[in-house]
Amino acid sequence: MISEGTFLTSGDLVGLEIKIPIAAMKLQEFQQYLNEKKIGLALFIHPDIIITYFTQLKPSYAYLVITPTTAAFYFTALDKKPALKGLAVRPLSKNWSKAYKRVHKIGINNRSLTVAQLERLKKIWPKATFVDVSLPLEQLRRQKTKEEVEKIQKACQITSTAFAALLRELPRRRLKTELDVVCFLEEQFRQQQAEPSFPTIVAMGRNAAIPHHIPDNTRLTKGFLVVDFGAKFQNYCADMTRTVYVGKPSSSERKLYFLLQQAQEDAIRAVEEGTSFTVLDKVARKRLGRYSSSFIHSLGHGIGLEVHEAPTFSDKKMKVQEQAVFTIEPGIYLPGKLGIRIEDTVVFDGKVKVLTSSPKELICL
Amino acid sequence: MISEGTFLTSGDLVGLEIKIPIAAMKLQEFQQYLNEKKIGLALFIHPDIIITYFTQLKPSYAYLVITPTTAAFYFTALDKKPALKGLAVRPLSKNWSKAYKRVHKIGINNRSLTVAQLERLKKIWPKATFVDVSLPLEQLRRQKTKEEVEKIQKACQITSTAFAALLRELPRRRLKTELDVVCFLEEQFRQQQAEPSFPTIVAMGRNAAIPHHIPDNTRLTKGFLVVDFGAKFQNYCADMTRTVYVGKPSSSERKLYFLLQQAQEDAIRAVEEGTSFTVLDKVARKRLGRYSSSFIHSLGHGIGLEVHEAPTFSDKKMKVQEQAVFTIEPGIYLPGKLGIRIEDTVVFDGKVKVLTSSPKELICL
Repeated sequence: MISEGTFLTSGDLVGLEIKIPIAAMKLQEFQQYLNEKKIGLALFIHPDIIITYFTQLKPSYAYLVITPTTAAFYFTALDKKPALKGLAVRPLSKNWSKAYKRVHKIGINNRSLTVAQLERLKKIWPKATFVDVSLPLEQLRRQKTKEEVEKIQKACQITSTAFAALLRELPRRRLKTELDVVCFLEEQFRQQQAEPSFPTIVAMGRNAAIPHHIPDNTRLTKGFLVVDFGAKFQNYCADMTRTVYVGKPSSSERKLYFLLQQAQEDAIRAVEEGTSFTVLDKVARKRLGRYSSSFIHSLGHGIGLEVHEAPTFSDKKMKVQEQAVFTIEPGIYLPGKLGIRIEDTVVFDGKVKVLTSSPKELICL
Repeated sequence: MISEGTFLTSGDLVGLEIKIPIAAMKLQEFQQYLNEKKIGLALFIHPDIIITYFTQLKPSYAYLVITPTTAAFYFTALDKKPALKGLAVRPLSKNWSKAYKRVHKIGINNRSLTVAQLERLKKIWPKATFVDVSLPLEQLRRQKTKEEVEKIQKACQITSTAFAALLRELPRRRLKTELDVVCFLEEQFRQQQAEPSFPTIVAMGRNAAIPHHIPDNTRLTKGFLVVDFGAKFQNYCADMTRTVYVGKPSSSERKLYFLLQQAQEDAIRAVEEGTSFTVLDKVARKRLGRYSSSFIHSLGHGIGLEVHEAPTFSDKKMKVQEQAVFTIEPGIYLPGKLGIRIEDTVVFDGKVKVLTSSPKELICL
């Protein structure tokens, strides 16, 4: 594969003013912020998810310049055509790029820009002040647009469809190992023009006691089987976990699963505007009772362009707000014995809606 | 999927002193550098490829601390077991982590550390000086160890085996589109316990005139078919491009391909210790003659843990040195008509060796 473009060398790059199709409203809000803060331009350099946020593209190298009144997107000639697909563009006037140099206050994304990249920017603009704009961007991204929710919803549908296919396939006993299940699910994504949002986790029996178990050739035998996976569709992620039982569960195993299912559903029911995510966590832990100490991770996380993005549940200031998309995923882990987890991706738009629609009753195969 | 750990909060993290299995010699060299520069410790924070370089692991969240005399690796409990696989470890003494606080000069990787991460480090060590250690690390990584070359070689073998399977499959005409070829090759990787190093490029006919074409449902019809792909095996990458012909090429198409093949082989033959990569580029361009202007990208790039790493061919100071691994990949792109490219991954260990062994003669299918 050919290596990427050079750093901010306009000679190698194609610059075009863009009409942004999906995040147009968000772009206006961000430009208003720049205007209020007297920030002459904001600059985002590859790889930065903000570039994908505003352009809906994933070019091999690019940077994005946003001023209070306009936006321009630069990318390499190597992927000129795919970069342009679906974007309304017109060539950038030469004077406009000259105007960059006169700017005194430049917005950067501290959470993505590396120290080395900032040093190079300081050489290009030796007199400018650089200010972090990551927080207002996080706030914009936490409130998904209608189009974003539609894409996440589609990713969740693809995920649920893949899981339904798995439920039909498992009883045939052709999938022998954890890795066989991974391949099967990822093939289901591909058939639906999607890819995995993250490396699929399939964990059989005691393997599932490690929440981030890496699937291997462990054979599918009697016990709980945890499947944690999600499709990425047009850059947007889904995330779902289901736990099924291979064989016939004991009565105590059924009870444990049912307890977890109740905890997960309690937390979902508790979602209301302005509720702190730490409160949702407490709701789940209360139901888990003495198993609360076996729930060794966070209740969930925001999701969108990235499988993990704001809101961060451990931050007490983070509250449920309109158009937030996040996961609810309690689990119980008994080291050396078993692990179980149930996870949904949900959206809050006045009321909570579960986007990952696969059944949560204990399915025995 | 569960979200990652907290930033440098030792409460949530498991800390262990490590005996590094693969890069032990490199670790010693790096520690010697720290010693010479009076750097008390170097700190690498997820995601930083340097963590994988020294530990050969890809944990979901981790940081690595290296002092002139020791090295410790911190990771979350979420993936405790996989993180430990294959590493000789012993618990870290408590006093040792306290000693961190007294350090005055801290090494960081400017090319990976974000501006926000550096700001947090400055709060933990308000009086310390932070110095960039990315250059000595680049120099270490440019010179591959025997074990690294073996892993890259294995990745290249897997790639060539997958290509041989494709050559057997194509005449059956069951693969109808570019995306069918992508799926076929990636399935071949999986069967060999490998994954793709980067998104596979398959480009039919005029699509190949865009070097970074994104494969789609374009049908395989008469013309040049470019396949640019590579396996990743145990974290190490391969990169190979082959161009085949679907149907029967005209005499001018044969000539064009043969010219490119000669240019690629000329550049490989010119590889000698101390040769500048810009000289290799000139060798290829000289052979391409009037088609030189249709070769619109760099001749190649270093490869290892990352599909693109040092040496950067456009840097005039970069020269061929012992144990360097890189690609040689000239191409000819005629917009609206066709594109052809031939690429090998090679190692220099006194003499040049091609690691991607698939045939380069024009194969017509």
